Amino acid sequence: MGQTSSDHPQIPALQRGDLLLQQDKDSYQKPAAANIENFIGTARVPIGLAGPVSVQGEYAEGEYYIPMATTEGTLVASTSRGMKVINESGGIRVRVTRNGGVQRAPVFEFHTIDDARQFASELNDDWQWLVPVMESTTSHGKVLDIRCWQMSRLVTIRMTMDPGDASGQNMVSISAQKAAQALTEKFPTIRRYLMAGGLSGEKVPANLNMLLGRGKAVTASVSIPYAVMHRITRADVADLPRLHQNYANFSMWGGNRNTHHSLPNVAAAIFIATGQDVATLPECSQAQNLLEYDHDQGVLHWDLHIPNLTVGTVGGGTGLPTQRECLELMGCAGSGQANKFAELCAVASMANEISFWGAICSNEWVNAHASLKDRD
Amino acid sequence: MGQTSSDHPQIPALQRGDLLLQQDKDSYQKPAAANIENFIGTARVPIGLAGPVSVQGEYAEGEYYIPMATTEGTLVASTSRGMKVINESGGIRVRVTRNGGVQRAPVFEFHTIDDARQFASELNDDWQWLVPVMESTTSHGKVLDIRCWQMSRLVTIRMTMDPGDASGQNMVSISAQKAAQALTEKFPTIRRYLMAGGLSGEKVPANLNMLLGRGKAVTASVSIPYAVMHRITRADVADLPRLHQNYANFSMWGGNRNTHHSLPNVAAAIFIATGQDVATLPECSQAQNLLEYDHDQGVLHWDLHIPNLTVGTVGGGTGLPTQRECLELMGCAGSGQANKFAELCAVASMANEISFWGAICSNEWVNAHASLKDRD
Amino acid sequence: MGQTSSDHPQIPALQRGDLLLQQDKDSYQKPAAANIENFIGTARVPIGLAGPVSVQGEYAEGEYYIPMATTEGTLVASTSRGMKVINESGGIRVRVTRNGGVQRAPVFEFHTIDDARQFASELNDDWQWLVPVMESTTSHGKVLDIRCWQMSRLVTIRMTMDPGDASGQNMVSISAQKAAQALTEKFPTIRRYLMAGGLSGEKVPANLNMLLGRGKAVTASVSIPYAVMHRITRADVADLPRLHQNYANFSMWGGNRNTHHSLPNVAAAIFIATGQDVATLPECSQAQNLLEYDHDQGVLHWDLHIPNLTVGTVGGGTGLPTQRECLELMGCAGSGQANKFAELCAVASMANEISFWGAICSNEWVNAHASLKDRD
Amino acid sequence: MGQTSSDHPQIPALQRGDLLLQQDKDSYQKPAAANIENFIGTARVPIGLAGPVSVQGEYAEGEYYIPMATTEGTLVASTSRGMKVINESGGIRVRVTRNGGVQRAPVFEFHTIDDARQFASELNDDWQWLVPVMESTTSHGKVLDIRCWQMSRLVTIRMTMDPGDASGQNMVSISAQKAAQALTEKFPTIRRYLMAGGLSGEKVPANLNMLLGRGKAVTASVSIPYAVMHRITRADVADLPRLHQNYANFSMWGGNRNTHHSLPNVAAAIFIATGQDVATLPECSQAQNLLEYDHDQGVLHWDLHIPNLTVGTVGGGTGLPTQRECLELMGCAGSGQANKFAELCAVASMANEISFWGAICSNEWVNAHASLKDRD
Repeated sequence: MGQTSSDHPQIPALQRGDLLLQQDKDSYQKPAAANIENFIGTARVPIGLAGPVSVQGEYAEGEYYIPMATTEGTLVASTSRGMKVINESGGIRVRVTRNGGVQRAPVFEFHTIDDARQFASELNDDWQWLVPVMESTTSHGKVLDIRCWQMSRLVTIRMTMDPGDASGQNMVSISAQKAAQALTEKFPTIRRYLMAGGLSGEKVPANLNMLLGRGKAVTASVSIPYAVMHRITRADVADLPRLHQNYANFSMWGGNRNTHHSLPNVAAAIFIATGQDVATLPECSQAQNLLEYDHDQGVLHWDLHIPNLTVGTVGGGTGLPTQRECLELMGCAGSGQANKFAELCAVASMANEISFWGAICSNEWVNAHASLKDRD
Repeated sequence: MGQTSSDHPQIPALQRGDLLLQQDKDSYQKPAAANIENFIGTARVPIGLAGPVSVQGEYAEGEYYIPMATTEGTLVASTSRGMKVINESGGIRVRVTRNGGVQRAPVFEFHTIDDARQFASELNDDWQWLVPVMESTTSHGKVLDIRCWQMSRLVTIRMTMDPGDASGQNMVSISAQKAAQALTEKFPTIRRYLMAGGLSGEKVPANLNMLLGRGKAVTASVSIPYAVMHRITRADVADLPRLHQNYANFSMWGGNRNTHHSLPNVAAAIFIATGQDVATLPECSQAQNLLEYDHDQGVLHWDLHIPNLTVGTVGGGTGLPTQRECLELMGCAGSGQANKFAELCAVASMANEISFWGAICSNEWVNAHASLKDRD
Repeated sequence: MGQTSSDHPQIPALQRGDLLLQQDKDSYQKPAAANIENFIGTARVPIGLAGPVSVQGEYAEGEYYIPMATTEGTLVASTSRGMKVINESGGIRVRVTRNGGVQRAPVFEFHTIDDARQFASELNDDWQWLVPVMESTTSHGKVLDIRCWQMSRLVTIRMTMDPGDASGQNMVSISAQKAAQALTEKFPTIRRYLMAGGLSGEKVPANLNMLLGRGKAVTASVSIPYAVMHRITRADVADLPRLHQNYANFSMWGGNRNTHHSLPNVAAAIFIATGQDVATLPECSQAQNLLEYDHDQGVLHWDLHIPNLTVGTVGGGTGLPTQRECLELMGCAGSGQANKFAELCAVASMANEISFWGAICSNEWVNAHASLKDRD
Repeated sequence: MGQTSSDHPQIPALQRGDLLLQQDKDSYQKPAAANIENFIGTARVPIGLAGPVSVQGEYAEGEYYIPMATTEGTLVASTSRGMKVINESGGIRVRVTRNGGVQRAPVFEFHTIDDARQFASELNDDWQWLVPVMESTTSHGKVLDIRCWQMSRLVTIRMTMDPGDASGQNMVSISAQKAAQALTEKFPTIRRYLMAGGLSGEKVPANLNMLLGRGKAVTASVSIPYAVMHRITRADVADLPRLHQNYANFSMWGGNRNTHHSLPNVAAAIFIATGQDVATLPECSQAQNLLEYDHDQGVLHWDLHIPNLTVGTVGGGTGLPTQRECLELMGCAGSGQANKFAELCAVASMANEISFWGAICSNEWVNAHASLKDRD
């Protein structure tokens, strides 16, 4: 599938003195062999450290710094400011509430709706025999669920596997292909199949991922005293639930979250720093704030729920040098760390969301950007 | 808004020998001062070159190599394979079909629906006076449109500016804030406003961006002879429109595109390489294939339409060293290059989409991944 | 277009004594000739009167009874209960905030993207010449807007007309067809066109109607004292905004409203009673509550915004005998009454929404249904 | 819950001679006592008979006439025309492919995310004990599924019951309330609950119903010879799949079907005629065409899939006089007939869809409307 010449002398734009060619060829070309073709060097994206933030998770406990690779000025500073609010509010609680797994959804076509219905019905009733077939191609992936959706002569099978600490897209692809082959042998009524159906939810910003599960669902929660938020952000917390409602009428505009940019911004930065599949952002960036102000105690109870974080701490780009260092910096490198890493992604997103709302409500959002950047 | 200590001796995980600290501090810390806070080094993301591809655009004409920063194996090779199909089909035509601009959408709150209605009505009828106000804060941004949406006592104003060759989010924020202040002085009925309303569409994967415009809309178009596609990908082009329909029933699943992963995958890789705002992926990743097979000529006419590419060639991260080199490699660095760059983003996305469908239809998609990667 | 035999002796299920055949043939067959083919009688749907309700609209002022044709027990009683809350709160304010018109969206196909772009660009710049063409086929429809959306080789033209007091679907169809013919004469690059494109939004429950306009947008508004709501519904108004947020997280589930069933329920009942096109329910049933509790005054400020009511008081089924009587009952029959009728539809919907939330918050919702109906 | 005076002498608009008061009081007031409050008479909606159509269903076999109550001219004639295409193509096959049941989705609120997670986890693992609780309130409803979705401190429980031949909304409400009470007794960590959460999908036009199931999924299928379609509608069937794609790019506009108005139009008319809950139209009107043209045989294979038909043949308005006659006319009245009725709803929708596309492709759609109606 492709030319693999590693030198490109024919490209006149690249000079011998260029930074792209100069650096990283030695340290990156070999490690990245499975991650890239026609390698010419590395993009270098500035990393800032947000933090520290005090976390009371199930997996992440203590003080953490979060590495963020971004070129958007104020993003790291704003996240750090939210972490200050969190710290002075006694820290942030965070839990993985669902392990949604990773999906592949091949589409099977039949000659008649009866054949399709028969197939879907049989497979929905008895799919356990596919489990060893699918798990034969992987050392650690586990089948969680197999379900059929019929649409006229088509049957989509949504196959869900637990990828362990990897994000697992390739693992589930290989297992699903094995399953598809086994199905075509068993069901002669199958006319044709395509491996990649839309119901996998991969890189699709659709509610289906929230509803059917994909990646890790994580909730973070902070109880912010009025005085803390006001001192750090000048925002009036008592009014925030109402103002949030004014902003967050996304159901009217067709959005699938009621949060602001925090999650895509923060996730993009952490994903680049740690070797995640950045193209999953559309599926990862749904989120929902829940706000309640206790007038008696003067405390804002704030939850942020993220339903679909498809992240990993092994495989993909996580083993490359700087990527691994960033994971190590959070104590999240390697096996057994994916839940901890998911918790920290949610924590950083919520810190940014808090700071953002502070800035918005005190009308300082734009100024923060303006002061840090050239205006155009 | 922020601590700016550039050294983090307190972080035990970072050793003096670490790659993060070792490199790039000198070459990146100063250039990136406006892009990052608490800088500790750079993430290095492998870049592969896809190409060459023969392009007949309005701005991009000739042979191009596309730099893609990714850790997803096969992505570059697959894109190059699609480019081979394009080249042997006589090249790809590509046009920017809409300049959607960049938006900010402050929300204004009133005490009564009558006040809100009066405000929206007046402003919809006469908003030209706001143009000089908004353009006073920028040297090149131009106001394209100002429109009001009333929802009960709230009025959202969607302000659209042409950011020239920048992506322009900060520029429009500053201009919009200036406009909001002018509005509060003119309309005493305004009770309060929030700068950031959901109708901006920023980083939101909603159809509103397709409908109302945001970023550049680009269409790419190739006419692929049966023999070319079959030789390179083994796919049966005559059947592809029907198979595509089977796959692409996204309206049933709630997706907002009928393409596969190509656009998010390719856009993420180019965006990282060239210093774009990667968090815009959710708003950029809508796309629509249009397929028509001419049985008489044996040719597949294939169009790919991308409605919302928010990209820039100046500002943001585009001026950083490797980012600029990657833009230069395509002849897209600096002023006057944004349309050309948008054309090339669409070209690379379509190349990948073509290769993907070739692989899917010949059942070689998973194998390509499996052979290039460790299985788990 | 079809068989028009008005007797069906061949249908054995219909006996001479049947209610369908027995009644209404004389009084309905002739009046309904333009509304129905193969007429065999009339469906009789029970009408209940909700009210009275005290309305302070722009068009509707005073006390009103609302006729609702439904077979869902409790719907009329619940709406009347909400009207009682409204009356004891000093009445309801209501305004039409946008006249969205009625749309047809033909799709034009071209051989190349350049032809398509040229066409869209020319027409967006100069469409005024189409106004007399379109208005030549109607005595009262007025062109409000004509806009092009290009998607690769396709251009959809969204043509918006003000239908006056009719709902106007047929009027705009005829005008749009005339326009399409004129366009094909002027633009020889047009390869083909289809009259009915999805961008019309007709009978589609999509956000596009909220964003681009269709039908009348109406906001209703009530300020409910704590004591009034509590006495009538036993609900705790102070807590209602928070509880509403818990329920109304529709952006997470993919819905396009944050209200409950009130609008579809009430609109269906009024539409059947008054001869509206009931099939427009999917496009009409978006809505958004906005709630604010004033702790000092002990008053809940409640707005309900409905963006897309496609209703009429002339044409369609509005002239049939009982349908006209129902319109007359509200003083809404005939020309010049569409805005008033839209106001009253919103008023009744809001009354039901208020009663519903009272029932939900006091846990009496299910009981109300259970006591009024056989359980299964 | 309200005033029940059955006479309204205080309404001056209603005269003693009015049709509303004159008729139906005797024949309808008593039968409709459970369906309406403040009864004043009946709305009379013209019924036309579409048909006959030759059906090869699992439940419906033979020739059928379909009663449609509508005021939209051409709807019945157009449906009959599509039935003629069906008949001359050898009839229509139709199957219920999923029994999605009916849902209620109460929302439970907790003080902490841990409490919420514990609750959701326990209930997802063991919900069988709730089955007898829920089934104790109904003589025929059966629990199909109980599943929890956690969103921060909220847990929505989607409770699915098989309502037999009723549509079942009230039945499941009563059972769900019983379950909610049992849950609050068992789980002291529950802070509060609301009976009506958005995840029920009731009257919501969201993809969640397609994905999670609600009502009956039905597929209808016809193989139409080129000559048949061309003779009756003048449409060129060979080109129809491509033209359909041009039209049906609804994923770009945010719609959730790729069909035209047929389903909402036909469903509204059948629902009114047969006493269904018309307000369910937003949830019922999703649908998907699948088209394949066999160039060798000259036959168009056309499937129409409708995922969410929430219909019943007992309960609700189905027992009222004309409503019951309409069900009887199709042999669908009473117990054991809901699947047959769902099949016939899909058949009629598909007949209309076929006729519509014939009209669109031969450019006769508007003319058909224009000739049958006054133009304005």
